[in-house]
Amino acid sequence: QSLKIGLIPADGIGKEVIPAAKKVLEAIGSDIPKPEFVPLLAGWEVFQRTGSALPEETVEALKECDGALFGAVSSPTRRVTGYSSPIVALRKELDLYANVRPVVSVAANPGDKPAIDLVVVRENTECLYVKQEQIVATENGREARATRLITESASRRIGKMAFELALGRPRKQVTIIHKSNVLSLTDGLFRETVRAVPRLAEVNGRYDSVKIEEQIVDSAVYRLFREPQIYDVMVAPNLYGDILSDAAAALVGSLGLVPSVNASDNFVMGEPVHGSAPDIEGKGIANPLAAIRSSALMLRFLGYSAPADRIDRAVDQVIREGEVLTPDLGGKSSTQDVLDAVLKKL
Amino acid sequence: QSLKIGLIPADGIGKEVIPAAKKVLEAIGSDIPKPEFVPLLAGWEVFQRTGSALPEETVEALKECDGALFGAVSSPTRRVTGYSSPIVALRKELDLYANVRPVVSVAANPGDKPAIDLVVVRENTECLYVKQEQIVATENGREARATRLITESASRRIGKMAFELALGRPRKQVTIIHKSNVLSLTDGLFRETVRAVPRLAEVNGRYDSVKIEEQIVDSAVYRLFREPQIYDVMVAPNLYGDILSDAAAALVGSLGLVPSVNASDNFVMGEPVHGSAPDIEGKGIANPLAAIRSSALMLRFLGYSAPADRIDRAVDQVIREGEVLTPDLGGKSSTQDVLDAVLKKL
Ligand SMILES: CC(C)[C@H](C(=O)O)[C@@H](O)C(=O)O
Ligand SMILES: CC(C)[C@H](C(=O)O)[C@@H](O)C(=O)O
Repeated sequence: QSLKIGLIPADGIGKEVIPAAKKVLEAIGSDIPKPEFVPLLAGWEVFQRTGSALPEETVEALKECDGALFGAVSSPTRRVTGYSSPIVALRKELDLYANVRPVVSVAANPGDKPAIDLVVVRENTECLYVKQEQIVATENGREARATRLITESASRRIGKMAFELALGRPRKQVTIIHKSNVLSLTDGLFRETVRAVPRLAEVNGRYDSVKIEEQIVDSAVYRLFREPQIYDVMVAPNLYGDILSDAAAALVGSLGLVPSVNASDNFVMGEPVHGSAPDIEGKGIANPLAAIRSSALMLRFLGYSAPADRIDRAVDQVIREGEVLTPDLGGKSSTQDVLDAVLKKL
Repeated sequence: QSLKIGLIPADGIGKEVIPAAKKVLEAIGSDIPKPEFVPLLAGWEVFQRTGSALPEETVEALKECDGALFGAVSSPTRRVTGYSSPIVALRKELDLYANVRPVVSVAANPGDKPAIDLVVVRENTECLYVKQEQIVATENGREARATRLITESASRRIGKMAFELALGRPRKQVTIIHKSNVLSLTDGLFRETVRAVPRLAEVNGRYDSVKIEEQIVDSAVYRLFREPQIYDVMVAPNLYGDILSDAAAALVGSLGLVPSVNASDNFVMGEPVHGSAPDIEGKGIANPLAAIRSSALMLRFLGYSAPADRIDRAVDQVIREGEVLTPDLGGKSSTQDVLDAVLKKL
């Protein structure tokens, strides 16, 4: 038996951090079935070569995999006909409806509670990401419109994911993020549907111990910086979740530390939250920890929590010791140095 | 000659901070024409009494005023038929297209540069705030859609406002905030239109000295916390501007410090960025400084910069001395104490 993992480094530092995560998975040993890696293409570079940012073969090959790791995509600096973000397309094509982004700081002592410990659960298939846009010319100039879609079914399944994750955490709290004071129908539907999850017949009282809170998105970001400890699981429509998870990453010192998975009920794709970072591409100094943590999170979603814990502990130790860190964390080490340090702690 | 100022305290602590700002305007003396105040109604409370959150008389009376101060609105905790945010409606009815929100920290010494000194210029009439929403029932549950509108004309006028403000600042930099990697038509139009402002014939080279930068909204929020000094003037579509200004407020210690104006080319309405704060309503401890600074900003937009400077200096001094502060800033003083302290420094 083997574990088939699609690898899509895509652009920029994706090509530096995904190979590092691969090395960690190879080093895990008998805690997981022997991993078999399937290298796959996507991104701006492959678009420039082939005219497609997400080749059909990539999508097809992923359907044969047990899980995947995605790097990062570069965006063209101006609008290019035919180009469309492959990560947004992948999430939709594989119906990876949940984007789960834990943001956790590393406590000074291994046994202590981390100061920041929250998880952003971002709806991953709709909101403004349906990309239904039109532009028309009028007498007064051009007018562009985009559709923001919020459905009850998508809100319900992301709500369930949030409650399920909350159940496994000590605080057991879900905070619903919305802007229903302005968007009474779309965000109203999101809020109401997530609120109703614990009362669903099929759920059968499972979430009765979970506390529900809510925050308007603007004030949620403000309070995230002022009192991050008020949050446990934050559940949000797609765009708010995108902004919130970047905001939360600032709390733990670097986007280079924050992992995510894109998950459906039967597939999971790990993805560091950072972008392709063209400014440091090719310099060998990209922080591989977000990608490595993403591989751990992927394993966790595949049911392998013991090896996921091992990886997370190794990463925590490297951060705690603070001797081998990339420049984004104030260190002077290379991607390779950090990878070696993690491998040594495994 | 007098200065006619509409006063709309609206809900919650709006009714505590607007009277404080009024007192400051009264104390300014001969630097401005004698202010004449017109008390006006709006908000959730008046909706509950009368069925209208923005009485027609309020809008009509404002049209006779030179300027206005708005407090804050409470939102119903669930959807209420017929209720719709009066501040959003006012911005639209008076075409107050620019929401200008300076976020400035107070330096330890009067002559020093503040650590945080940026201004969010938020488009105030469109984006998702057009509130065109529909909801339909389908086989798979309800589906709600909202329209996000971005027009060339609104993007151009907010862009001009941003460049004009940048011209009056030492850094002279405009950062365009967008998400055109996903919203290529709507945010693409915003970005492109703002970028083109300096090249407009009518502008006649006026903005040639202004530097243009841009940031994707998620990464803009991240960098706002990591390196706030990279920003000078940030110009954004409505919703991003809403989130960004709350985020920036966290940098200076309290939403209770951040003023704004809603401006058209011939009317200006000051408004503290904070909300109605039902949790502290009626306790007499609301921070009046955001409302007081909003009155200064209103005067500035009306052409009275000397008295505006006087108010800002008085507020800065009170913050710098740190002896009379409301609880949001870690102090123990009341709204009245803080008002008195400001009046004494005027
Ligand atoms: C690259 C971009 C399309 C993407 C998103 O907006 O989802 C990114 O910001 C992310 O958070 O994964
Ligand atoms: C109360 C609400 C409608 C408003 C907005 O979203 O504009 C507020 O958050 C603001 O920033 O003035």
